[in-house]
Amino acid sequence: MSKGTLAVVLSLGCAVASSALAQDPLMKAAQEQFRPIPETAPELPGNAATPAKVELGKMLYFDPRLSASHTISCSSCHNIGLGGADAEPTSIGHRWQHGGRNAPTVFNAVFNTAQFWDGRAKDLEQQAGGPMVNPVEMASPATHVVEQLKGIPGYHDAFAAAFPDQADPITLDNAQKAIAVFEATLITPNAPFDRFLRGEADALSPVQKQGLSLFMDKGCAACHNGINIGGGMYAPFGVVEKPGAEFLPPGDQGRFMVTKTPSDEYVFKVPTLRNITLTAPYFHTGAAWDLRQAVAVMGASQLGIQLSTAEVDAITAFLGSLTGEQPKVIYPILPPSVAGTPRPQP
Amino acid sequence: MSKGTLAVVLSLGCAVASSALAQDPLMKAAQEQFRPIPETAPELPGNAATPAKVELGKMLYFDPRLSASHTISCSSCHNIGLGGADAEPTSIGHRWQHGGRNAPTVFNAVFNTAQFWDGRAKDLEQQAGGPMVNPVEMASPATHVVEQLKGIPGYHDAFAAAFPDQADPITLDNAQKAIAVFEATLITPNAPFDRFLRGEADALSPVQKQGLSLFMDKGCAACHNGINIGGGMYAPFGVVEKPGAEFLPPGDQGRFMVTKTPSDEYVFKVPTLRNITLTAPYFHTGAAWDLRQAVAVMGASQLGIQLSTAEVDAITAFLGSLTGEQPKVIYPILPPSVAGTPRPQP
Repeated sequence: MSKGTLAVVLSLGCAVASSALAQDPLMKAAQEQFRPIPETAPELPGNAATPAKVELGKMLYFDPRLSASHTISCSSCHNIGLGGADAEPTSIGHRWQHGGRNAPTVFNAVFNTAQFWDGRAKDLEQQAGGPMVNPVEMASPATHVVEQLKGIPGYHDAFAAAFPDQADPITLDNAQKAIAVFEATLITPNAPFDRFLRGEADALSPVQKQGLSLFMDKGCAACHNGINIGGGMYAPFGVVEKPGAEFLPPGDQGRFMVTKTPSDEYVFKVPTLRNITLTAPYFHTGAAWDLRQAVAVMGASQLGIQLSTAEVDAITAFLGSLTGEQPKVIYPILPPSVAGTPRPQP
Repeated sequence: MSKGTLAVVLSLGCAVASSALAQDPLMKAAQEQFRPIPETAPELPGNAATPAKVELGKMLYFDPRLSASHTISCSSCHNIGLGGADAEPTSIGHRWQHGGRNAPTVFNAVFNTAQFWDGRAKDLEQQAGGPMVNPVEMASPATHVVEQLKGIPGYHDAFAAAFPDQADPITLDNAQKAIAVFEATLITPNAPFDRFLRGEADALSPVQKQGLSLFMDKGCAACHNGINIGGGMYAPFGVVEKPGAEFLPPGDQGRFMVTKTPSDEYVFKVPTLRNITLTAPYFHTGAAWDLRQAVAVMGASQLGIQLSTAEVDAITAFLGSLTGEQPKVIYPILPPSVAGTPRPQP
């Protein structure tokens, strides 16, 4: 076969595939608004993943000694077994203080435009530095994180392997880099909806297809779109009608607190809806325990419509198709503390 | 080769092996007092392990929703990554209360004569029920544990698979059984000392052999013996000389609080020394952070001797040979909460 013939065959192959897709208008419409999760972790700009760096990041992610009390790790609130989040309205942190907002899932967070509900961290690397030093979360003073890590002998080799060109690799910046490359592996491909997006028409049930159709037609997808079905933009909570204070307490002005721009009052990052059935409770307050209720509140507050029970059910069924393969993580063996390791703060 | 010849060859093989062992008096003496950890999990009487039961037990072990707050799991204080214990003097529990005693390692706990520092639980099954309902630990009322589990739909199938002959398998008793069979898999075989016990003379370094020799000659092995180098008996802390109140606070009378027998005052279960370098801090108070210090205190309080620095160093080096292969545990994916799942108590 000549090169020319091959090119013709390939392009014919493509033509056939896209014509098959085009026959299903719902699939075609969905393909225009959403993208499937890839099978492999994306690369982070300026922070190449190596097995040693991913392994170090996993150790740090699970190490409670990064907190002042030595009891709270990234994993405490972003639990691999619970959809990458926790089962709390707001997480419990240092000395049983409650965090201000519901812990977002770490799964697929790498695909979000920015991190935190208010987008105050531009990426996973920057995000990873936040909770460690937040006084209501892990509560470690920033300078202490490095002292703590340097006081655990096994981390010397682990950082040297992850950052082989550096003379003094145990730094907060490198810890954040390593955590970020590990977190980038926490993706959940092959949800039924992803298989549907890839052309598998039967991957969604009839009611899920009906829900997808409503999700696009009613306007949900105006914000919840792209690879993470959310996570790509900001929106005011209550764009049409402000919900009650249980869902939108006046004390939390969202992105306004970051930008100080009046139009950002009560603006939040649109959360991903991937794996949403695994991560109750919902909203930045974690005040909605029932996904159906959350869907109905969104309809009223964001779209100004009263969804019928059947519509809520169908959309909720569609949301169930967003649960992908959960990451398979082998629990890391952490380097032990020794006599000289800095001790937990009571 | 006839059957008879084979038997002769085999018995000759055995004779050669035991004569080789007998040539090393240290190895021979050690083999009389200690036993290696097996490669596979032991069976629990009346609680046969099946893959479904072990998997359920793992889920329960990692599920923070067994605690009132939904933030504390077995894994919080018995961390697979930290030698099966935590890095605290005493663990932090419900509403930031501190437990009364240092969290013992779950690793190889199946080989202990009894569980808890005061032996108040006869086995892993009985132990597993303790922390869930202890008000300073996980703080779930006993009746609530079952309500909680029944309120998580995914547990219905998981319990049915683990206890296939039962009509209503979600019970506290079954939860404890499942946790126990999972915990029985958390064993750490093939420590250098185990390889030495199996005849590998070079598995210990010269200083470790010197330490082993001291460990037996000075009397440490009178209590710390058997498969777990401890865990097989009770002993008064301060049998010769009471240590200071930092190590033996007068308020905690140990096994006396269980048996009310005067001779049990300040009696505690002799802890395992397996993986001891991974589980600082030490003693039931967790007041000793330095393993060398713990060895010296034991010499003075239990044996009435002042160990020299060189002796302490050699014994500590020997203790380093008790670190076995750490369990390889894939983080379990937990069944999600739904709208009707009982919610965390604040």
